[in-house]
Amino acid sequence: MSRAAAAYPPDKVILREVGLRDGLQMVRRFPSTKAKAEWLRRAAEAGVTHFEVGSFLPAKAMPQFADVRDVIGVCDDHGLHSAALALNERGVRDALQTPLREIVTVVSATEEHSQANARRSRADAIALIRRTVELARASDTMPLVQTGLSMAFGCSIAGEVDPDDVVRVAARCAEAGADLIGLADTVGFAGPAQISDLITRVQREIGDIVLSIHLHDTRGMGIANASAALDVGVRVIDGALGGLGGCPFAPGATGNVVFEDLVFLCERKGFETGIDLENLIVVREIAAAEMPEEQLYGALARAGAPRQINWRA
Amino acid sequence: MSRAAAAYPPDKVILREVGLRDGLQMVRRFPSTKAKAEWLRRAAEAGVTHFEVGSFLPAKAMPQFADVRDVIGVCDDHGLHSAALALNERGVRDALQTPLREIVTVVSATEEHSQANARRSRADAIALIRRTVELARASDTMPLVQTGLSMAFGCSIAGEVDPDDVVRVAARCAEAGADLIGLADTVGFAGPAQISDLITRVQREIGDIVLSIHLHDTRGMGIANASAALDVGVRVIDGALGGLGGCPFAPGATGNVVFEDLVFLCERKGFETGIDLENLIVVREIAAAEMPEEQLYGALARAGAPRQINWRA
Repeated sequence: MSRAAAAYPPDKVILREVGLRDGLQMVRRFPSTKAKAEWLRRAAEAGVTHFEVGSFLPAKAMPQFADVRDVIGVCDDHGLHSAALALNERGVRDALQTPLREIVTVVSATEEHSQANARRSRADAIALIRRTVELARASDTMPLVQTGLSMAFGCSIAGEVDPDDVVRVAARCAEAGADLIGLADTVGFAGPAQISDLITRVQREIGDIVLSIHLHDTRGMGIANASAALDVGVRVIDGALGGLGGCPFAPGATGNVVFEDLVFLCERKGFETGIDLENLIVVREIAAAEMPEEQLYGALARAGAPRQINWRA
Repeated sequence: MSRAAAAYPPDKVILREVGLRDGLQMVRRFPSTKAKAEWLRRAAEAGVTHFEVGSFLPAKAMPQFADVRDVIGVCDDHGLHSAALALNERGVRDALQTPLREIVTVVSATEEHSQANARRSRADAIALIRRTVELARASDTMPLVQTGLSMAFGCSIAGEVDPDDVVRVAARCAEAGADLIGLADTVGFAGPAQISDLITRVQREIGDIVLSIHLHDTRGMGIANASAALDVGVRVIDGALGGLGGCPFAPGATGNVVFEDLVFLCERKGFETGIDLENLIVVREIAAAEMPEEQLYGALARAGAPRQINWRA
C-alpha cells in the first residue's frame, strides 16, 4: 500500500475540511489561534479526520496563516491529518520543520493564470513540485505531497481550458512524484458533465495516484459536481465549513462547497463518512463568532438533517 | 405523438417555472395580478415556456390564487403552457372554464400524509384523478392532466417511503389516465441515488407517460438531484424563480430548486434550454419588490454566468 493510500484508504470517502486554509484566504478578520484549535478539536470530535489548515507564506503577506505551525501542532496532538500550502522552497523547508502530514503545492492549468497568479511558468511550478517531493522524501517527517491543479475546469483569465492540457499537466505532476493530485474548479465554471469527463481522463493518465477534487460553489453546482465525482470513483473531496472562502474572481459569490452538505450527500449516496452532522454544525458557531462579516452557507445548518428517516449510510 | 408529447417534446428539456404556484403557497404578501402578468411576460421573453401559475381553491382560503383565471388568461395571450392545481371536482370544473393547458392533481405517496394533508385516502385521491381525466377529456379545452406524487422520497409524517409503494401509486395514476406523472421530493429528503433509483423503477412501470420531477432544495441537494434525474432520462423539471417556496415541514428552509441555477445545470450538461439567463435573472426583481419578506436564493443571480467561457449547450 502506498503511503498516500494509508492516509486516504481507497475504499473510504474522505472529506477534507479546508475552511482554515481556503476559507481564510481572503478574509481581513480571522480566528485566533485558540479559536482555530477549538474549531479543529470540535470538528475532530464530530468525526472529521483530514484538514487543510494554512499556508507557509510570510506572515506579513498573509497574517491569517502566521500561526500555521501552532495549528499543525494542534492537529498532531489530536492525531489528525494536517495539510498546508507551500508555494516556494522556503515554505517547503519551513513545513518540514513541523509534524505536517501533507504539503500542498499548486500548479495552474493555464500558462496565463500561472503567470498572473504565481508569477512563474507552469514548467517552473512543476520543477518546484519535483523539488518539494525530493525534500519531503529526504525529511524526517516525510509528509505526502499533493499537487492542486487550479483552474482545471475553466480559467478566469484564459477562459476555456483544453482537457488535453489538464491531462498533460497532471501527467507532469505524477512524473514529478506527487502523492496526490487535486483537480480544482477554482471559479465554479464546471457542471457535472465536465467533472465526470475530466476526472475520467485524468484517472486514466495518473493510475494509482490518489485523485482529489476541490470545488467552489460559485454557481451552485458544488454538490452536483461532488456527486458526479463520486460516481466516477473519486473518494477525496475538499469542502469548507459553512462554505467559507469567497472567490477573488467573482465578488459576492459563495466560496468552497459546503462541508456539512457534502456529509449529507455522501451518506445519502451510501458512503459512510463517520461524521456526526449535528455535532459538526455547531462548530460553525466558532466561524460566526470569529468572522462576523463572513456569510456562512449551507442547507443542513438551516434545515437540519431529516429526523423522520434514516439518511445515514 | 401523444398530446403530452406535443406539449413536452421528449427530445427537449423543459423547465417549468412554478414560482407563481408553489412559490406562493405559504406567503402572506403576494404579487398583484399586474405583477404576476409582468413576471410571466418577462420570463417568457427570456425564453421560459411552461409555468405553474396557481390553484383552483376558494379565494378565502388561498387569496394568493384568487386571480388564477386572469393569470391563466395572461399565459394564453402569450402562447405559454399554463398549469394549475385542482384538488377537488369543483376546482376541476372551474379550471375547465379557462384556457388552462394542464390540470395538476396530487396524490400523496403515503396514506398518513394523504389523510393529514388532503383529508382523504390515496384511493379517493386516485378516484379524483380518474374523474379529472374524464372531465378534462370531455371538455372543450382538453387540458393535460398531471399527477404529482408528493412525499415520493420520504414523508414528513410516515418517514421512510417504500419505493414499491410509490411504483404502485404511479401505476394507479397511469391507469387513471394521467398524461404526466410528477415525482416530488416535497421535504428535501432525497439524494441523487434515491432519485435515480426511484425514477428508473417508476419509468419501467409507466412506459411512455411523461415523467417530471419536482425538487425542493431543503437540504441543498436540489441541483444534484436534478442532475441525477437528467442522467436517467427525465426531461421535465420544476423549479421556482429565486428558489421561492418555503417548506411548511422545515421552518427556515429554502424552497423549490432555483430555476435560474437549473438553467445553468442543463446548459452545462449539454441540454439547450432556450432560456437567456441574464434576462431571466432580472425577473427576480418583481418577486423581490412584491414580496420583500421572502428570501431569494440562487447562485447564478449572485455570481452571474461565466463570461470567460461558452457555457451554453
